[in-house]
Amino acid sequence: MRAEIISVGDELLRGYTVNTNTAYLAKNLADLGYDVNFQTVVGDCEKDIFDAIRIAVTRSHVIVFTGGLGPTEDDMTKEVVAKALGLKLVYDQPTAEKLEKQLAQRGIEPTGAPMKQAYVIDGCMVLRNDNGTAPGILLQKGNQVIVLLPGPPRELEPMFQNGVKPFLMSFSDVCCESATIRVVGLGEPTVEQSLGELLYGVNPHAALYVNTGEVLVRVFARGTDQEEARRLCREHVEKIKAVLGSYVYGEGDRDLAETVVELLKEKKLHLATAESCTGGLVAAKVTAVAGSSAVFDYGVACYADWVKKHALSVGSSVVKKYTTVSSPCAGEMAKGALSAGKADIAVGITGIAGPGSGDYGDGHFPVGLVFIGVADKKKVVVKKFTFGDL
Amino acid sequence: MRAEIISVGDELLRGYTVNTNTAYLAKNLADLGYDVNFQTVVGDCEKDIFDAIRIAVTRSHVIVFTGGLGPTEDDMTKEVVAKALGLKLVYDQPTAEKLEKQLAQRGIEPTGAPMKQAYVIDGCMVLRNDNGTAPGILLQKGNQVIVLLPGPPRELEPMFQNGVKPFLMSFSDVCCESATIRVVGLGEPTVEQSLGELLYGVNPHAALYVNTGEVLVRVFARGTDQEEARRLCREHVEKIKAVLGSYVYGEGDRDLAETVVELLKEKKLHLATAESCTGGLVAAKVTAVAGSSAVFDYGVACYADWVKKHALSVGSSVVKKYTTVSSPCAGEMAKGALSAGKADIAVGITGIAGPGSGDYGDGHFPVGLVFIGVADKKKVVVKKFTFGDL
Repeated sequence: MRAEIISVGDELLRGYTVNTNTAYLAKNLADLGYDVNFQTVVGDCEKDIFDAIRIAVTRSHVIVFTGGLGPTEDDMTKEVVAKALGLKLVYDQPTAEKLEKQLAQRGIEPTGAPMKQAYVIDGCMVLRNDNGTAPGILLQKGNQVIVLLPGPPRELEPMFQNGVKPFLMSFSDVCCESATIRVVGLGEPTVEQSLGELLYGVNPHAALYVNTGEVLVRVFARGTDQEEARRLCREHVEKIKAVLGSYVYGEGDRDLAETVVELLKEKKLHLATAESCTGGLVAAKVTAVAGSSAVFDYGVACYADWVKKHALSVGSSVVKKYTTVSSPCAGEMAKGALSAGKADIAVGITGIAGPGSGDYGDGHFPVGLVFIGVADKKKVVVKKFTFGDL
Repeated sequence: MRAEIISVGDELLRGYTVNTNTAYLAKNLADLGYDVNFQTVVGDCEKDIFDAIRIAVTRSHVIVFTGGLGPTEDDMTKEVVAKALGLKLVYDQPTAEKLEKQLAQRGIEPTGAPMKQAYVIDGCMVLRNDNGTAPGILLQKGNQVIVLLPGPPRELEPMFQNGVKPFLMSFSDVCCESATIRVVGLGEPTVEQSLGELLYGVNPHAALYVNTGEVLVRVFARGTDQEEARRLCREHVEKIKAVLGSYVYGEGDRDLAETVVELLKEKKLHLATAESCTGGLVAAKVTAVAGSSAVFDYGVACYADWVKKHALSVGSSVVKKYTTVSSPCAGEMAKGALSAGKADIAVGITGIAGPGSGDYGDGHFPVGLVFIGVADKKKVVVKKFTFGDL
């Protein structure tokens, strides 16, 4: 079934806000088996919204609007969509009561503009907003569904998951299943080449997408029933995992930092970090994971050479002989962090991250040259990386 | 003059890639005085691209396409646009020669699919691609301009700046000037309320947009000549700065971290950091700025209490009496970092950043409660913050 997404808002048209909602919705609609064929952005302008919905109903089964549901004069999605479809707005008592409570909590009078949000399109299903005041709207007309969602992602995303997704699952005429395989240590071209014909098939379908520092392989399968879809999807996932081997670090939504924290918890290990060129980024990523305090005590950003010596006991002779951009220095840093952080495992990172040239001390190094050392109580391993365009 | 942006690519439709190009182009087109009225995303599908261009030419003066210029079969923007406009593709000798060189460097045969990129639309201006193989295309037909740009931002952005912007500046019938005022320490609603009628006017126009941790006020003015536009813009900027006072930390493209590094360089000061709840994020932000090694030596992520005591000499009595989530602890951390980092100024950050609950030690704290201490050789200042929805 064909789907399209129409985003409403001057802030999107003018580029003040990057449109992340469409990527979110597109991914979720695709996972439910809908083919997203168009995405459109129009401003807070009656004529343009009107034209957008008139065009959309001629070509799509599912039409999802985002934005323009708020209380101000500029917010007019609901009104214009109703008009274009020849439907009325009606006052929704339960929405009004909820709204009055929310407004009271914020000390706002429940009259005038804010109460505009109590009106919904006649015959619609009202979608509860747990994180804001504007309710969403889901309207079925024959074999078409029109959904109106608020613009802020923290309101839109739970509303989609809780209200829209269950409806669209039963509305769709296909059963489907999707999975995400997470890959680290290989670039996109290498993953693409390795997987060859396992990618871009029709059913099951697999495609790549690139996050900072990782590649995700998304697998999608359709079946005559859920069981078949699941089987096709799982078989394809296993084939892909067999090719990529240990470069696969996980499946699903859990990212690299979460996976690392989870593994450390499981193995009851404490991690410490010593970072030169990354300046604390690894520590920040790890500590951003909920519950990381169970596995992380200490990290040091040792930007200056004297800090490497002082806080991490990196030997002067090592620095003199190899410079701080070297494999021995990364190893010493990891050992130093292990000891200073009273940890079970530690990482030491030194290199030329850029921006700026690779002039450092007396030497010149290529930007992207990085040494990463890992130490535990028994040994130290250092690997050299040459990161290209990231 | 009316502008619209049409992005081509299945990866956008399926949500694998967030469409950052449209925000970039929209902002730049607005700064040049063009009103962006529509943004559309279509897939790698001849019919949909064809329909998009046919609709666009009926309503916009400037039409910018992104994506679909590469060598593969899926890439067809150029071909379909030419067809829709009744124009031919012609072999461009200079492009072909440049392409052959680029392909040779990568060890690719200069035949077949890659050489498809040597064809351009008859009568167009060819836009040089300094970061890739596909040239861009700029086509003027009467009072309309159609621009075709490659999808990767690192190819698109310089091509827009060097090739498209100069053309559109002289094509536009208005002179305009824009500026960005950067604000930190105030939320968007507060900025909006403070500025009142200085916002959302017609000419000069000012609008807000929100980055992580800061609010930007973008000012835009039109004039009969450049001089008038500049004067209107500057006058409005000064009015806004007068209202926001010291919450304005800069103007233009330089962000908060860059501003901090610049100020430190100017004042010849060294910064050190001690971070508990932020776990190294401040150090990472500072060290990501080119040239930061001149002002930053040392940062510590002191997630565990023993690290606060050991690496930063935070007194046991302070921790016992006030806990580590306290103003005295933040102050001690800043002092400790000042000393351990041999710095002139230091920051100590402790609090409950979330995610997860605010249970910590024996106490329970609200998520978002953060103490930030700043120390120099003479004094220590600590401020308490209660960060809400960020």
